[in-house]
Amino acid sequence: MELLKTANEVAARTTAARGRGETVGLVPTMGALHAGHASLIATAAEQCALVVVSVFVNPLQFGPGEDFERYPRNLEADLQRAAEAGADLVFAPGIEQLYPPPVNITVHVGELADVLEGAVRPGHFDGVVTVLTRLFNLVGPARAYFGEKDYQQLVIVRDLVRELRLPIVIVNCPTLREEDNLARSSRNAYLDPTARAAASVLYRALAAGAAATEQGTRDAAAVRRAMYAVTEMEPAATVDYLEVTDPERLIVLERIDGPVRLLGALRIGGVRLIDNLAAAPNPTAD
Amino acid sequence: MELLKTANEVAARTTAARGRGETVGLVPTMGALHAGHASLIATAAEQCALVVVSVFVNPLQFGPGEDFERYPRNLEADLQRAAEAGADLVFAPGIEQLYPPPVNITVHVGELADVLEGAVRPGHFDGVVTVLTRLFNLVGPARAYFGEKDYQQLVIVRDLVRELRLPIVIVNCPTLREEDNLARSSRNAYLDPTARAAASVLYRALAAGAAATEQGTRDAAAVRRAMYAVTEMEPAATVDYLEVTDPERLIVLERIDGPVRLLGALRIGGVRLIDNLAAAPNPTAD
Repeated sequence: MELLKTANEVAARTTAARGRGETVGLVPTMGALHAGHASLIATAAEQCALVVVSVFVNPLQFGPGEDFERYPRNLEADLQRAAEAGADLVFAPGIEQLYPPPVNITVHVGELADVLEGAVRPGHFDGVVTVLTRLFNLVGPARAYFGEKDYQQLVIVRDLVRELRLPIVIVNCPTLREEDNLARSSRNAYLDPTARAAASVLYRALAAGAAATEQGTRDAAAVRRAMYAVTEMEPAATVDYLEVTDPERLIVLERIDGPVRLLGALRIGGVRLIDNLAAAPNPTAD
Repeated sequence: MELLKTANEVAARTTAARGRGETVGLVPTMGALHAGHASLIATAAEQCALVVVSVFVNPLQFGPGEDFERYPRNLEADLQRAAEAGADLVFAPGIEQLYPPPVNITVHVGELADVLEGAVRPGHFDGVVTVLTRLFNLVGPARAYFGEKDYQQLVIVRDLVRELRLPIVIVNCPTLREEDNLARSSRNAYLDPTARAAASVLYRALAAGAAATEQGTRDAAAVRRAMYAVTEMEPAATVDYLEVTDPERLIVLERIDGPVRLLGALRIGGVRLIDNLAAAPNPTAD
């Protein structure tokens, strides 16, 4: 596996691969690779001749007071994990490679950036799509891989590709979980043992919402109450949101008439966790 | 010459051309083609195997109260002019082709959109780069052609391509002028005879500033006064700005130490006109 640190080297390498007719796959990451990333890389390796993993902690997607400075960075461990999972190339640029000054052009997300994660993290999704647009045009992948754990990001990335007509297939991969169903996340490393023990409450709340939906609850407020009933049992957890939305546009629902996405965010011991689940009314529940 | 109205048809046509190794050139326009556009198209025809002219009055780059509704539209005349100049394909889409709903992703210009034209027309350049990003990715040109008349737009488009790493060479072509040096513009059609007679004041003001610069005036304020001295002789003209800037980043200068760009905008008879000129201290003037 190759490690490249400059944009020009990566562009040359991927341009050459495309010239040979090879499918280039991109797994964009902020490093701190875990089993969830490994599963994205392994899927890419099944589908692509050249698998590029980018490792870049993107300052544009962190707000003031967020964890940009303390975000875990360990390139050596990332290289090993990427290689084991089947990556061919890791691109670990310095900031000047992706944002050579002057920075005058950014990409902006409309309504979808104002809800859920966006409501709590203003500017976050603008930072995400700005770095992705630069990475996509630099690497030129035919396929790019994203985890469902960041479900709102996935919906926005699909908009990005469709609206700007980027010739990229977006592949989504299921969320990987710990034994107690806590979603794998680089930020789990921040959890102390007490917080770690409490952290599965987010999954349990979403699962309670999914169960209520599947059992035929049509009133979204009742599903939300089922989710809050779980988190209220965990005093260490402070909920940012627990919502029932349509799976395509993430519009918060009042009534459930088909498949939904349940999304939640909460804070435990100073660590912010997000997760989501699909659910649909069971046809036999009517 | 071919006329296509759907995005998919244009993408198929240009993808096939690239597959045959042909250079695709794009001349993005809002229609109302004049000799300036014809010169861009003719230059493209010299350099490209497939010359695409887009004709689309982009609502995103017009502000409230601007002339979106009355902007001149005459596709028949545009087709004739484009064909005569050497275009191979005119792409004249409806709005749903470039902005299929939902529209959630736009492109945003930073500091460069806050000065000069941007200060008078908030949001204008965001609209320009948003439609251009969509057009660029749809058409996939190797080269795209822009007139120097819209100089600030040219600088911003160069930023767009460089920062988002679009694989496109931006070609700039000199401003075409009427006999009295009025810059060719689709908006000149709005000028009534009285306003038309007065309109050359903008060029004359810029030329006075260029002469002062070339004669060795180092104080930018004195160059600005030389320009305003000309416009003040024309009571029909209301100046939006007349500025001395550096040619690369359009920073308004206090002192002239090398090549500059003089940019101006004024209104005459309800019509807004812009123009610009390059100038540099004559080495023999020191």
